[in-house]
Amino acid sequence: MKKVGIIMGSDSDLPIVKKATDMLSTLDIPFEVHVYSAHRTPVEASEFAKNARERGFGVLIAAAGMAAHLAGAIAANTTLPVIGIPCKGGMMDGLDALLSTVQMPTGIPVATVALNGAANAALLAAQIIAVEDADLAAKLDAKRKSDAAVVLEKDKGILDRVNG
Amino acid sequence: MKKVGIIMGSDSDLPIVKKATDMLSTLDIPFEVHVYSAHRTPVEASEFAKNARERGFGVLIAAAGMAAHLAGAIAANTTLPVIGIPCKGGMMDGLDALLSTVQMPTGIPVATVALNGAANAALLAAQIIAVEDADLAAKLDAKRKSDAAVVLEKDKGILDRVNG
Amino acid sequence: MKKVGIIMGSDSDLPIVKKATDMLSTLDIPFEVHVYSAHRTPVEASEFAKNARERGFGVLIAAAGMAAHLAGAIAANTTLPVIGIPCKGGMMDGLDALLSTVQMPTGIPVATVALNGAANAALLAAQIIAVEDADLAAKLDAKRKSDAAVVLEKDKGILDRVNG
Amino acid sequence: MKKVGIIMGSDSDLPIVKKATDMLSTLDIPFEVHVYSAHRTPVEASEFAKNARERGFGVLIAAAGMAAHLAGAIAANTTLPVIGIPCKGGMMDGLDALLSTVQMPTGIPVATVALNGAANAALLAAQIIAVEDADLAAKLDAKRKSDAAVVLEKDKGILDRVNG
Amino acid sequence: MKKVGIIMGSDSDLPIVKKATDMLSTLDIPFEVHVYSAHRTPVEASEFAKNARERGFGVLIAAAGMAAHLAGAIAANTTLPVIGIPCKGGMMDGLDALLSTVQMPTGIPVATVALNGAANAALLAAQIIAVEDADLAAKLDAKRKSDAAVVLEKDKGILDRVNG
Amino acid sequence: MKKVGIIMGSDSDLPIVKKATDMLSTLDIPFEVHVYSAHRTPVEASEFAKNARERGFGVLIAAAGMAAHLAGAIAANTTLPVIGIPCKGGMMDGLDALLSTVQMPTGIPVATVALNGAANAALLAAQIIAVEDADLAAKLDAKRKSDAAVVLEKDKGILDRVNG
Amino acid sequence: MKKVGIIMGSDSDLPIVKKATDMLSTLDIPFEVHVYSAHRTPVEASEFAKNARERGFGVLIAAAGMAAHLAGAIAANTTLPVIGIPCKGGMMDGLDALLSTVQMPTGIPVATVALNGAANAALLAAQIIAVEDADLAAKLDAKRKSDAAVVLEKDKGILDRVNG
Amino acid sequence: MKKVGIIMGSDSDLPIVKKATDMLSTLDIPFEVHVYSAHRTPVEASEFAKNARERGFGVLIAAAGMAAHLAGAIAANTTLPVIGIPCKGGMMDGLDALLSTVQMPTGIPVATVALNGAANAALLAAQIIAVEDADLAAKLDAKRKSDAAVVLEKDKGILDRVNG
Repeated sequence: MKKVGIIMGSDSDLPIVKKATDMLSTLDIPFEVHVYSAHRTPVEASEFAKNARERGFGVLIAAAGMAAHLAGAIAANTTLPVIGIPCKGGMMDGLDALLSTVQMPTGIPVATVALNGAANAALLAAQIIAVEDADLAAKLDAKRKSDAAVVLEKDKGILDRVNG
Repeated sequence: MKKVGIIMGSDSDLPIVKKATDMLSTLDIPFEVHVYSAHRTPVEASEFAKNARERGFGVLIAAAGMAAHLAGAIAANTTLPVIGIPCKGGMMDGLDALLSTVQMPTGIPVATVALNGAANAALLAAQIIAVEDADLAAKLDAKRKSDAAVVLEKDKGILDRVNG
Repeated sequence: MKKVGIIMGSDSDLPIVKKATDMLSTLDIPFEVHVYSAHRTPVEASEFAKNARERGFGVLIAAAGMAAHLAGAIAANTTLPVIGIPCKGGMMDGLDALLSTVQMPTGIPVATVALNGAANAALLAAQIIAVEDADLAAKLDAKRKSDAAVVLEKDKGILDRVNG
Repeated sequence: MKKVGIIMGSDSDLPIVKKATDMLSTLDIPFEVHVYSAHRTPVEASEFAKNARERGFGVLIAAAGMAAHLAGAIAANTTLPVIGIPCKGGMMDGLDALLSTVQMPTGIPVATVALNGAANAALLAAQIIAVEDADLAAKLDAKRKSDAAVVLEKDKGILDRVNG
Repeated sequence: MKKVGIIMGSDSDLPIVKKATDMLSTLDIPFEVHVYSAHRTPVEASEFAKNARERGFGVLIAAAGMAAHLAGAIAANTTLPVIGIPCKGGMMDGLDALLSTVQMPTGIPVATVALNGAANAALLAAQIIAVEDADLAAKLDAKRKSDAAVVLEKDKGILDRVNG
Repeated sequence: MKKVGIIMGSDSDLPIVKKATDMLSTLDIPFEVHVYSAHRTPVEASEFAKNARERGFGVLIAAAGMAAHLAGAIAANTTLPVIGIPCKGGMMDGLDALLSTVQMPTGIPVATVALNGAANAALLAAQIIAVEDADLAAKLDAKRKSDAAVVLEKDKGILDRVNG
Repeated sequence: MKKVGIIMGSDSDLPIVKKATDMLSTLDIPFEVHVYSAHRTPVEASEFAKNARERGFGVLIAAAGMAAHLAGAIAANTTLPVIGIPCKGGMMDGLDALLSTVQMPTGIPVATVALNGAANAALLAAQIIAVEDADLAAKLDAKRKSDAAVVLEKDKGILDRVNG
Repeated sequence: MKKVGIIMGSDSDLPIVKKATDMLSTLDIPFEVHVYSAHRTPVEASEFAKNARERGFGVLIAAAGMAAHLAGAIAANTTLPVIGIPCKGGMMDGLDALLSTVQMPTGIPVATVALNGAANAALLAAQIIAVEDADLAAKLDAKRKSDAAVVLEKDKGILDRVNG
């Protein structure tokens, strides 16, 4: 199976990124994690992206906050699908990171998820790999059904909680 | 090759969506286009999503503006990767559509691109299919190089234009 | 008397919704409460809306945050009046939920109240039922007068509190 | 049938309000239209609201821009359901009018629709009257079906337009 | 000397308003304080404004949050200068209250100060009264000089604090 | 009668300021107009403010856009009431100018009116002078009544325009 | 004299950048202009920055819109002062480009000027070179005085234009 | 070596400014610190700026929040490079201070850094001085390398922390 590469701009983003690695582990998808800054280690970040496809990666995930150039810097150096996770913390509480991540010029897309949306980034990576992997697709369908069951279970008990 | 399914919420979004279909045609990727509204034709929209994987689709692209529920409504009914294109036109000039598209609950990701970013949505779909398709990956690499050459050609002539 | 149906997108919205059920209880208006997610349980959410009128509901209230598609998904499946409560919690602290709730396409209105405005949502539902129910209208007028009396009582004592 | 009362803050809002009166005419719902300013004619605005129920109104619609106090000023003087239409034109292009309309204190709800959403305001008024009027409810259901048919008709022809 | 009238929309605004009454007390300017809601007690609020000039008021100050219609409702009923204090607390943390207060239609100005700017509202009221009151003007000039002295005193000690 | 001093930051603001001078002329209030920039001519701007009271001014009005420091720079050099007119044109279409004008530190208030609100700035200046000038107060009351009459005249004819 | 290097992300930014080159020409400061994209030509952009100091540059200016990573990508590869010009055109009309340019991580500053502020970027570059160049400093002082004279000339004629 | 002058608008900004003085101390760059308010002590603030060049300053740094006029007021009185630090705390959590600082009129640039970005302001000042000071430039290059080493060290240990 293709690997997922996860790069965070600072190790302070680890608690967010952890939700992605946990999801990938649950789905038995192999991954590699790195700390590379688009501004402090631009060479290492771009080298990683350039070599990713031949090193067996299928999808890259980049998490960064504030000016949030990391996902774009990664995407500029590979044609693998790159998923960007904007991280909370800038002047506009993450809206700036979202805009900085999503507004890429034509030719260099970044698949952007919600602020701090690391679990969904991992799921999206899984969905991408599952396009040609029926077993993984079945796992994703099963997870979707169990998520629904959790909601319906809560629906059953809600009147008691309203009255309680 | 897996097909790309494109759904627009209103046929007024066609000029935007056209940039996606043009890109897919250029890359010889098969696609299907539909007009389904999350609010006016909720049944048809969800049926399309539910049957997409078995009908041979690999990626779905949904384009919608304003409250922009379409990508989410599609994603709620499939585990295929869903790419959302927020369209300009709401109260906050597309920022509202962006937020309505990107802020999905955990479990149902939407891969969001920039406002009106249909060309990049198509490229992202191509990158997803190219994960397991080396020929398409090579095409994408070639396109990236020719995009760079265009920039460098402009760089050569810029001083004349500054002075001209 | 027609019933009021209240749907919340997640049981974490219960503390907000509780202000609506309390108001309805005070006014002796019958209601039913559910947890249905527009994205995790799209089938159950739309079925509830489709059958609501014939099951004796007169107004539906939907509470959801973030992308906040729930009120729109309910409104897409009924012509009963639907009241939307945007809930705090997204990237823009509820403004995103407000816009996602209020900006419906022509043909599918959602009567939107303020962020977390569950008490007012219930009052609005009561005002709608009271259009053809003189007793309930009288109750609402009486409540309005007692609300005013509370303000005027505070006015009497304010100088002492300024000086105290 | 109960009448719908429509108040606009300035006659410059007439082009917007016209979409509401057209919709009400189509649905054969009686209405009355007024120009009252919350600030320039506060007495007339509040008198109209105070007498509305006994004069046979079932719903009031108020349209105003900028500081947009009109819907709130109307709602403060009646317990009939009041629908607010925020009008484009303030410093934040209508977002300010939306917030000024929707953020009412507990006890005085305003059912807010989208910016310039006069057609939906009229539809919402119709839905409110239809709660106890089965013929009008049937008309609304029929309109919903014909709106869907328009979308599906466009879906049929979209591929030709993409290729054309 | 003309009196200053202060109206707050809710007694929960008292901690803010207190900064205004303290400033007026310091400057020996007579004042009166009231709690009137534009929405819950519209009659009392407008009556107060209508009679203010003949009751000896020279300036009115209105403090309110959220939809913040109070200053406008007061200004609609008098030609005395009305100062509006937008209070923190709405969906956009007071920006909404600021816009709702400041964006008055031509003919009905509200002199708006900063969010929670009650001390400055009182100073502005004092400046207005001081236009024809040389003693009060002298007091204001003296206060300005002592405010400057405080800053310059801090400037003297700042290097020690940087190094300390 | 005390004079009103009007300062604009650039002569490009003249079309806005003209609405203020027209209003003052209508009300027979004497005024003086200047072009001083807080940044390009800081000395002249502050000198004007410092000497304003003894030169017979009762109120100063400052109009500026973008960073909009002018009203604050004027207010820093006088204890006369200073009215700020934020002018459209910055990055956030005037919201930035509004915030830059209204958010003054405690001790230095600026009475802020709406974006481009020059007519209301002049009216506010008139209201300030009218605090001790009964004739001017009567003029302002008369103007208020005639403004209301204009609205009520429009109300009379609105149904014809709706149907026409 | 040290040279100024100007890089624009796209040749569509040339009309903006022209204001910078004109200003530098007026001040007789040598410069070089390039078109390099942070995303389409990441190698060329970083190489230019890495070699800039030894090639005789004293200041670099980078102009870019939308996600606006260019200034940051340049700054990541040099310790020369880098001035960023955010260009209009993204989803938030340049505010996004401003935030993406200014919010750099500690260690990699970008000296940011206003939206499209190319003339000021060139002036800032001139001020930086003038720190150790008394002749250039004198030129800048002279320009400042002539800018002030233009304002004062307009002040002289403004009353005629108000009355005219 | 030229000195750096740092002015803060209020001593409450000292904790922010401290990050600038610490950075300058580390780099052995001489500096002077002051508390001057653009509004409360406008004379002292402008005098400091006017005399700065001849007193041996090479760069000035101004830190202020809310309306944040200080950097502009300093820049209006010198042609030295002026760096503005917008400080958190206004109605829009620093975005207002950023806009008020950065949006200077043509002719009076302010080199703006991120919200509370005092360390980067000091580094930018150092970069400016280093344009003609090879020793300082070498120090800055060394610091850049050690910053990168810190990131790469964290990269080495990240997998253990993900798994730990």
